[in-house]
Amino acid sequence: MNYVHIVAVLAVIQFIYFGIMVGRARGLYDVAAPATSGHEMFDRAFRIQMNTLELLVCFLPALLLAAVYWPNAIIAGVGVLYLLGRALYSVAYTKDPSTRGLGFALSLFPTLGLLIAAGVGAVIA
Amino acid sequence: MNYVHIVAVLAVIQFIYFGIMVGRARGLYDVAAPATSGHEMFDRAFRIQMNTLELLVCFLPALLLAAVYWPNAIIAGVGVLYLLGRALYSVAYTKDPSTRGLGFALSLFPTLGLLIAAGVGAVIA
Amino acid sequence: MNYVHIVAVLAVIQFIYFGIMVGRARGLYDVAAPATSGHEMFDRAFRIQMNTLELLVCFLPALLLAAVYWPNAIIAGVGVLYLLGRALYSVAYTKDPSTRGLGFALSLFPTLGLLIAAGVGAVIA
Repeated sequence: MNYVHIVAVLAVIQFIYFGIMVGRARGLYDVAAPATSGHEMFDRAFRIQMNTLELLVCFLPALLLAAVYWPNAIIAGVGVLYLLGRALYSVAYTKDPSTRGLGFALSLFPTLGLLIAAGVGAVIA
Repeated sequence: MNYVHIVAVLAVIQFIYFGIMVGRARGLYDVAAPATSGHEMFDRAFRIQMNTLELLVCFLPALLLAAVYWPNAIIAGVGVLYLLGRALYSVAYTKDPSTRGLGFALSLFPTLGLLIAAGVGAVIA
Repeated sequence: MNYVHIVAVLAVIQFIYFGIMVGRARGLYDVAAPATSGHEMFDRAFRIQMNTLELLVCFLPALLLAAVYWPNAIIAGVGVLYLLGRALYSVAYTKDPSTRGLGFALSLFPTLGLLIAAGVGAVIA
């Protein structure tokens, strides 16, 4: 089992799920493509997807590079925090955007931790 | 020859090409930066680029992780389907957005197949 | 020392920095989420982030794949040009969008060079 690769695959699947939720919100709240705004609930789904896109392009390289230098299970464990943080972010943002802070922090900080681990690993290698 | 790496490079070049088409549409249809809307034909070019960005961040990790566990030529073959699907998506969306479904499916399903291949490979490794 | 991995980590950190600048611009120029437009200076910060996102998803795979085939220090050196080009792009775009061309070119061309290096490497491997 390569835990880190499993986490990487799950992070991509989670992002695809957020994309499906945007498509669903288009139908539910009548926001036809190519518009990317028009109903508060659609805007929330769209912002969840875009914010996750921005973080995913940081998380995946950080995760995979950190795993070059540190034990697979530990790095994967930090990656699981990211997955949980993003899930919480999505649920909280959908209910009430003002409560998104905790989920955002719980996905940003693991990403920063993995970046530091990757950077330190690359320097001392 | 590393076929998978060649497909990865071509997928990035295809995305850059879609970005150049957005720049060209800015000039042709008079949509000055930083606006990202304003003319139907510009909107189509911009949506092609953004939708490809969303899928590319899924496709590239899926492709490269699947290649860790499965034969290079087979994984690259699935990757070529993605390239053709995206090319069709771009041509169809530009002509008539309502016909974009086939090209979208032909690029999404190979990506999902690669994700599953990567996930299964990581679990049984 | 893995110079290429250090450059990859720095490129992600630079992108996160541009994201922080967008958050800061939201506060400074009073553009509340989920709006992504509303004040010229906010728009500049947002375009710097989005344009860097588009290029980062090209740069990171190009950098890491090129490093599979060519000497680590040379590939990392090209990657440093990208980092400097993006820094110049950000500073110039913030001051005066019409002067962003040089920084854009100095980050695009290293990315294209790395893509070619990765593609050639994958073909002759």
